[in-house]
Amino acid sequence: MSKQLPVLTTDAAGCCAPLAQMPLPAEHAARLAKAYKALGDPVRLQLLSLIASHPGGEACVCDITAPFELTGPTISHHLKVLREAGLIAGERRGTWVYYRPVREAITELSTLLVVPQATATVS
Amino acid sequence: MSKQLPVLTTDAAGCCAPLAQMPLPAEHAARLAKAYKALGDPVRLQLLSLIASHPGGEACVCDITAPFELTGPTISHHLKVLREAGLIAGERRGTWVYYRPVREAITELSTLLVVPQATATVS
Repeated sequence: MSKQLPVLTTDAAGCCAPLAQMPLPAEHAARLAKAYKALGDPVRLQLLSLIASHPGGEACVCDITAPFELTGPTISHHLKVLREAGLIAGERRGTWVYYRPVREAITELSTLLVVPQATATVS
Repeated sequence: MSKQLPVLTTDAAGCCAPLAQMPLPAEHAARLAKAYKALGDPVRLQLLSLIASHPGGEACVCDITAPFELTGPTISHHLKVLREAGLIAGERRGTWVYYRPVREAITELSTLLVVPQATATVS
């Protein structure tokens, strides 16, 4: 058993550094895992994509529900999961709610998964 | 109801494009969601980080088990989920299995979450 164990301690400065750069502190792992879990569903991934790629940088619920063969409440549930994970933000204007991606939160998840070519072997 | 709905059809060329660039095709969403779901657990996120940040670009199971207060079988289960999601690859050498990150798969997940500053509003 190696004695040179990676340290999993509190290190606020370590938040958001690519996971290939240094071990991810436990207290950040819980928060980030929740966000990845929100993406761990095909419908939610497509919903986020529809919102993020929509012209104008936001999408009305009326625009993102129709492509799916799902009920309104089911779509609402998935949007709630994305919202609670901090990946989208919604604003009611008149009849409809408009959603936009929360760029900083999504970028944090992207940055964490940057693996420099030198540090990893491709399978 | 808007008539200009985003199209969720088969488009192999659309695979891996940032989700803010174009709607994610359904058949890719299922595969990618499985990978994000594998990251949706704090222990698995830390395990991947320990493996990816380990000197030499790979880590012996003996090096990544000790930091956690978990049983060997539980760690093995989490490693299996990461392996089945294609995020790590393992190789037995003597007594131990050595794991390395699968850079292409992890990079695909990172690229998908790139949100250009111009297309999104920060909450």
